[in-house]
Amino acid sequence: MRYLLEYAEGERVVAFCLVKAKEVGVTSSQSEYLNLELGDRSGTMTAKLWDVTEELKESIQVKSIIKIDAMVQNYRGKKQLVIQRVRLASPSDEVMMEALVPVSPFPVEELWAKLERYVGEIKSQVLQAIVREVLQDEEISGRLRQFPAGVKMHHNYFHGLLEHIVSLLTAAERLLPLYPHVEKDVLYATCILHDIGKLYELSDAVAPDYTTPGQLIGHLVMGVELVSGICRKLGIPLGQAEVLHLKHCMLSHHGDVENGWGSAVSGKTPTAVMFHYLDQIDSKMNALGQTLSEMGEEEWGYTGALRRKVWRGY
Amino acid sequence: MRYLLEYAEGERVVAFCLVKAKEVGVTSSQSEYLNLELGDRSGTMTAKLWDVTEELKESIQVKSIIKIDAMVQNYRGKKQLVIQRVRLASPSDEVMMEALVPVSPFPVEELWAKLERYVGEIKSQVLQAIVREVLQDEEISGRLRQFPAGVKMHHNYFHGLLEHIVSLLTAAERLLPLYPHVEKDVLYATCILHDIGKLYELSDAVAPDYTTPGQLIGHLVMGVELVSGICRKLGIPLGQAEVLHLKHCMLSHHGDVENGWGSAVSGKTPTAVMFHYLDQIDSKMNALGQTLSEMGEEEWGYTGALRRKVWRGY
Amino acid sequence: MRYLLEYAEGERVVAFCLVKAKEVGVTSSQSEYLNLELGDRSGTMTAKLWDVTEELKESIQVKSIIKIDAMVQNYRGKKQLVIQRVRLASPSDEVMMEALVPVSPFPVEELWAKLERYVGEIKSQVLQAIVREVLQDEEISGRLRQFPAGVKMHHNYFHGLLEHIVSLLTAAERLLPLYPHVEKDVLYATCILHDIGKLYELSDAVAPDYTTPGQLIGHLVMGVELVSGICRKLGIPLGQAEVLHLKHCMLSHHGDVENGWGSAVSGKTPTAVMFHYLDQIDSKMNALGQTLSEMGEEEWGYTGALRRKVWRGY
Amino acid sequence: MRYLLEYAEGERVVAFCLVKAKEVGVTSSQSEYLNLELGDRSGTMTAKLWDVTEELKESIQVKSIIKIDAMVQNYRGKKQLVIQRVRLASPSDEVMMEALVPVSPFPVEELWAKLERYVGEIKSQVLQAIVREVLQDEEISGRLRQFPAGVKMHHNYFHGLLEHIVSLLTAAERLLPLYPHVEKDVLYATCILHDIGKLYELSDAVAPDYTTPGQLIGHLVMGVELVSGICRKLGIPLGQAEVLHLKHCMLSHHGDVENGWGSAVSGKTPTAVMFHYLDQIDSKMNALGQTLSEMGEEEWGYTGALRRKVWRGY
Amino acid sequence: MRYLLEYAEGERVVAFCLVKAKEVGVTSSQSEYLNLELGDRSGTMTAKLWDVTEELKESIQVKSIIKIDAMVQNYRGKKQLVIQRVRLASPSDEVMMEALVPVSPFPVEELWAKLERYVGEIKSQVLQAIVREVLQDEEISGRLRQFPAGVKMHHNYFHGLLEHIVSLLTAAERLLPLYPHVEKDVLYATCILHDIGKLYELSDAVAPDYTTPGQLIGHLVMGVELVSGICRKLGIPLGQAEVLHLKHCMLSHHGDVENGWGSAVSGKTPTAVMFHYLDQIDSKMNALGQTLSEMGEEEWGYTGALRRKVWRGY
Amino acid sequence: MRYLLEYAEGERVVAFCLVKAKEVGVTSSQSEYLNLELGDRSGTMTAKLWDVTEELKESIQVKSIIKIDAMVQNYRGKKQLVIQRVRLASPSDEVMMEALVPVSPFPVEELWAKLERYVGEIKSQVLQAIVREVLQDEEISGRLRQFPAGVKMHHNYFHGLLEHIVSLLTAAERLLPLYPHVEKDVLYATCILHDIGKLYELSDAVAPDYTTPGQLIGHLVMGVELVSGICRKLGIPLGQAEVLHLKHCMLSHHGDVENGWGSAVSGKTPTAVMFHYLDQIDSKMNALGQTLSEMGEEEWGYTGALRRKVWRGY
Repeated sequence: MRYLLEYAEGERVVAFCLVKAKEVGVTSSQSEYLNLELGDRSGTMTAKLWDVTEELKESIQVKSIIKIDAMVQNYRGKKQLVIQRVRLASPSDEVMMEALVPVSPFPVEELWAKLERYVGEIKSQVLQAIVREVLQDEEISGRLRQFPAGVKMHHNYFHGLLEHIVSLLTAAERLLPLYPHVEKDVLYATCILHDIGKLYELSDAVAPDYTTPGQLIGHLVMGVELVSGICRKLGIPLGQAEVLHLKHCMLSHHGDVENGWGSAVSGKTPTAVMFHYLDQIDSKMNALGQTLSEMGEEEWGYTGALRRKVWRGY
Repeated sequence: MRYLLEYAEGERVVAFCLVKAKEVGVTSSQSEYLNLELGDRSGTMTAKLWDVTEELKESIQVKSIIKIDAMVQNYRGKKQLVIQRVRLASPSDEVMMEALVPVSPFPVEELWAKLERYVGEIKSQVLQAIVREVLQDEEISGRLRQFPAGVKMHHNYFHGLLEHIVSLLTAAERLLPLYPHVEKDVLYATCILHDIGKLYELSDAVAPDYTTPGQLIGHLVMGVELVSGICRKLGIPLGQAEVLHLKHCMLSHHGDVENGWGSAVSGKTPTAVMFHYLDQIDSKMNALGQTLSEMGEEEWGYTGALRRKVWRGY
Repeated sequence: MRYLLEYAEGERVVAFCLVKAKEVGVTSSQSEYLNLELGDRSGTMTAKLWDVTEELKESIQVKSIIKIDAMVQNYRGKKQLVIQRVRLASPSDEVMMEALVPVSPFPVEELWAKLERYVGEIKSQVLQAIVREVLQDEEISGRLRQFPAGVKMHHNYFHGLLEHIVSLLTAAERLLPLYPHVEKDVLYATCILHDIGKLYELSDAVAPDYTTPGQLIGHLVMGVELVSGICRKLGIPLGQAEVLHLKHCMLSHHGDVENGWGSAVSGKTPTAVMFHYLDQIDSKMNALGQTLSEMGEEEWGYTGALRRKVWRGY
Repeated sequence: MRYLLEYAEGERVVAFCLVKAKEVGVTSSQSEYLNLELGDRSGTMTAKLWDVTEELKESIQVKSIIKIDAMVQNYRGKKQLVIQRVRLASPSDEVMMEALVPVSPFPVEELWAKLERYVGEIKSQVLQAIVREVLQDEEISGRLRQFPAGVKMHHNYFHGLLEHIVSLLTAAERLLPLYPHVEKDVLYATCILHDIGKLYELSDAVAPDYTTPGQLIGHLVMGVELVSGICRKLGIPLGQAEVLHLKHCMLSHHGDVENGWGSAVSGKTPTAVMFHYLDQIDSKMNALGQTLSEMGEEEWGYTGALRRKVWRGY
Repeated sequence: MRYLLEYAEGERVVAFCLVKAKEVGVTSSQSEYLNLELGDRSGTMTAKLWDVTEELKESIQVKSIIKIDAMVQNYRGKKQLVIQRVRLASPSDEVMMEALVPVSPFPVEELWAKLERYVGEIKSQVLQAIVREVLQDEEISGRLRQFPAGVKMHHNYFHGLLEHIVSLLTAAERLLPLYPHVEKDVLYATCILHDIGKLYELSDAVAPDYTTPGQLIGHLVMGVELVSGICRKLGIPLGQAEVLHLKHCMLSHHGDVENGWGSAVSGKTPTAVMFHYLDQIDSKMNALGQTLSEMGEEEWGYTGALRRKVWRGY
Repeated sequence: MRYLLEYAEGERVVAFCLVKAKEVGVTSSQSEYLNLELGDRSGTMTAKLWDVTEELKESIQVKSIIKIDAMVQNYRGKKQLVIQRVRLASPSDEVMMEALVPVSPFPVEELWAKLERYVGEIKSQVLQAIVREVLQDEEISGRLRQFPAGVKMHHNYFHGLLEHIVSLLTAAERLLPLYPHVEKDVLYATCILHDIGKLYELSDAVAPDYTTPGQLIGHLVMGVELVSGICRKLGIPLGQAEVLHLKHCMLSHHGDVENGWGSAVSGKTPTAVMFHYLDQIDSKMNALGQTLSEMGEEEWGYTGALRRKVWRGY
């Protein structure tokens, strides 16, 4: 199977793809056409559908999955698809979402296995029980295997949040021996749960928007409430020191309150302070890494998450 | 019954009072004495206890209630107590805490009755149920009849928080007819519950410190969790729009996130935005009012909550 | 009489309207046409004038009032006017400006009557004399019956400033009983005069720009100077305490100097501090209200004055 | 005549001086004494008045001028006065205030003559008339010959404001040829009038406090109102471009509004922008110069106006 | 010789010019054309090249120098060139770069002579040696005769940096007599060297970009390193007080560190503090002057360097 | 050998210690005494020297090493030394500085061996040569075995900087495998050299002050200049990519320029961005660790480097 960006100019493409953007145009002879942005795992390409019927104009929407039969042409120096035939995908097509969107370079099952191993290393019975309960929840674990870590800042691709969690756990494991005042169990639980509220702050894994609860409450407090709900279910008192510490780390993981980045409290323990910086490192390395990959041989690129030009290095 | 500040120079005072501060001094002849700051409802006065015994030195502590027999003297232009006899108060003395600390000018039962009336006006069954459940909780209602609204910024006296709540409700009731997009039920519920977390963020009503959960979680999120706990108990879904709105107003009541004052989200509804300003007005009017009362005939005073000199007006 | 937005697709419109924006376009056959944005009280609609003559191209300008004979068509899902005939309005047409621009929902005479009532309640002879003198000035009272409160932030429509003033007075009246340290006369006078400088900071009521004095001096100081001029005229000493207090409230009504929003001094009295927050409430409720009205059934909208997405509530 | 700091240890001093600070102390034998800080033009010295009478304790106040007969002693490595005899100065003593406070190094008449010369160079009749009218006012010119430019930041000594003005005029004269877009007349008038409001913002020239109008209105707006009053008196229209420009420069001379330093508007002309920086240079050079003078041979000192350690240079 | 902007509508232009921007367009008949922005010393004009050949499409690039034969036409009220013939310039054309880009109004040799005179006035042998060594470097002096002071903020034209330096020296010379604590030699050396790093921070004098070292190190530190390198070459110890002072002034010339404008240290001497403000004056007067020149008769313009509308004055 | 804090009340102490603070007091009988703060490796204790001679008063200075014969007494609940006999230490006493000041818990030779190992892992010949050259310099390596990493923020004890460097290298080594875009050689060299300028920014290892070059240039630029000097010595071009990258990381290690913490440029590579956060983690974990150690059984303490109360955790 070949992906969109692998086709050369002049080739014919028959493939499933995802509609990322859609605009209706009118030619000088007053006939309507569609300007589409189509994407799959390999990236996105623009497409033209001339003389579009009313029916297609209605049925093809952003987030639709369609099957196209098209030619790759050159338009002002870039490849563009000219669609000859098109239809909506049906369930019987069995299209894998993983084929249609950018996806983490690490297989989901490999990440999940690592996650399980780290959970097993949490010695605190209370914290391990909480984490296990979260991960056994069918809805949560289902989402966690698919959701990105954000709309565009970092790990913004299929199961990107899971990758981010495992990456943080790995970093945490490696730094822990150096800083004896950091509490391993709390740090591991924070790595796993700090962004768990994003599974409900975002609408879906494919083309995520912010949900209403997400905008009104925010993922920090949503995550903390989820933890509290589980404590109640498991009969763990909310005032328990480990639970308090975990929630403190979650609520402070955006850094000092004074920065205005949305922490509800400033970090007041070595564990909370360290986690904030680990999270900064992991998210910024991912954002910078994406920029560097796209730059290829270019010496300079631009990373939105840092609002800055970045250098490839030597 | 007369209060401390009502005694004149030269008079003898026999009274109960609260120890607010304590320092051990040594005279040039190497004997020890106590410098105390004693307070009751009327305010505070310094006191000297010469030739203190080891036993008294140990037993008299900050927050102790003591009975003194003392003379009011003039020391560098100010009244000072010179204690002749002193003992710790015992339960049989039946000292009323209200007599020993500054207290709201409004009787607690009058405030509570008003609060009940406002609760009755909440039409949303969900919100009324939540508020009623909170106020019926014995521990919460007990604390609410005693706690200040803060350690020193505003309404920093016995049942000051209750006064603040009723004052906000009254202000809300009066402004609501002007702003039809504000939702009355949510606004009332927010007035009542926005600082409810302070009942657990602060240690006690007499000489409050911050508790450990208070410092790690903060009263905004503590309040929201209390509300969520009640919803679970009452079977109200957390995603219910009114509940979401109430929690949003609670989490945003310190103003825009960018200010760095600890809101977890910025207000995104007319109700949330208005409540923040009402809360600013009510707290600052209280702080300014205290300064103006203390200024007496002075033209200028100083209000710590505004970090600014303030003018008496004409 | 029907307004622009009340016409349906396919109908013919003969109406007066205001030119809000104008652009000259060229067709592929090199003939020129006009893209116009036309507005009246009900809102704005785009319009096309094909094959425009040189004369019309010159005479139709932004802020022109024109009479059109046009058809409502559908263009990419929105209503658009295609103009068949057009001419400039002449004085004999007796077009009412109120029909051509968005206008406060409250009749100007009703607002003025309320304003007069509040003026009557000012007990300070000095402050009442100042306020009466301002309102009796023909130019000022003429402008006050027309000017918006701003170019786009809030109350940005015909006699919006007057509505804002009356709304503030009403809010002030309602909150005053709660806060005894606030001086009613000064608060009322500040409500009326705080933005009076805007009548000269802005160029006109229909399509306001900033005037040169407005940009060089700003409406806070302009208003204070206007008050001082009137004091001189009436023989009121500038050092008089009430006058000083009024001017202090005017100069501090944008909040603390440190915020950098243009207050010349920070508020140092209960009256000044409260007024700033009342002004914030009234302006933001208006801005949010406009957004919510435009949103209709949408759950989320955007309010420029808050730079934020806003929620409709439940 | 010798000044306080010129006397050596062991010498007897008979001199007039100003009381800068006063504290009542009590010896271990319960007798009272005064700790004074006494000053004259040369600086300040501490003084002890043992066994003070009730009468002297009352009559000697901060800002009193007293005549002392005292011995210079060494107290912990520093010179200290021990007062033997003391009385309040009487009018017949004809003590010159200039002898009692730090004073500008430039004679007042020399500064005034320079000021007059610069006024004569203002070609704009309107601006020259305004400036002349200000300087001819008896009260203003009287104060201008005495007032400091501030309480402690810079030029904080007798006729310091006049020195600051002349220094700014000289700097302006020298830079004008380089920047042709700067308007000389406006710049000169701004140099002279920018801080004229300080003559009423401060209470007096000897030991200045902030006045009530000073704190409520601030010297920027006070100065602008003074200019407007003069325009009215002289029949100059307030909307006149030169007057507008002068007032704009006065209102913006604390820099950009966003800085939160109290400008009412940000500078929008070359003249306004340049003046702000000239004012910064002149005030900071004065503050730094004072620090360097006091440092003597020390390599490092501290300048409060910059909140920073400063270096003597090589 | 006439420059681009001196030609009137309808005239024929045969001239050399610089390509500032280039875009390929497609007509409705699918033929390609070029939209160009062409410039010379007088400014820029848009140009159309219809029916462009593949070869020209490739060879004409941004920064190319071309010779055109074109007609000036009116397009939507502005002059536009329609190119009939075009070719790339060749070395034999001997086009002077000064004819193709905006250039300082002061002749380079006049500026250089002034610079030499100021260097001669530096009395410190150490500082004079450093400055002379810099200016004798062939590469540096070559660049200094061509480079702008920046990409777009101020003195953004041919040998603009040299003009800025001489302007600063003149201002410094004029203010020095007023401020005796400022060290003339250090100030002069700082005027000359403060932006010397820009000669390597920017790529070239014609269409400057930031170089890689420029972005990674910045012109402040680059300049300081250049000075240190010269000290080593001349055998001047780096710890020498004058050298230390010069480097301090260079490193602090963007103002206080806390501003976040890139100073590595805050200015701690009168010389350093004054230089920062002189630099602000000179750069902002230049930026404002350019805006005012372009405004012509307009009352208001916009200066990007101040992010603000600016007024022409009276 | 026992340290100061190991002696109990009532014991006699004969020991060397360092004078950390000194104050001359006067008893009511006018005799002078010294209040000293004495310290050794274990911490500090206050001490009284009654009836001090003129000679001792002069010879005992801050930073003096003295030998005392004293009794440990209880003074207001704390241990205090009452000195019976005292003399200055002489070289023949052979007092080890390590015994007199707080010192890193890690032996210097162990740290140095680890440092050498990391240097050996730098594969880039250029970077390894630079690092080796720095470490072979006798003065630098001598200082590096003694200097703290700062006056009081973190690693503020004997050879604290060396401990900080080795700790950073260890952390870097552990995280490198996770982030492939980070350049190991540059990161290692930055760990070693980022604070190397502190060896000259601070005066000495025992009671460090800021040096004049330290205050005028700052340790970031001082370190970069040291690197450049070595490059010149070794014939490595300054424009070499690895050198540029190393210097970029050094100049940006205080975070974004906009923060105003003194970075000369903002980090623009994965290596620079990561290093900043690693440095934050290592310094804050050290500061927090010191607080937690001092807290003992207390639940809450205070960390100056974070300006915040900190929690012990569970």
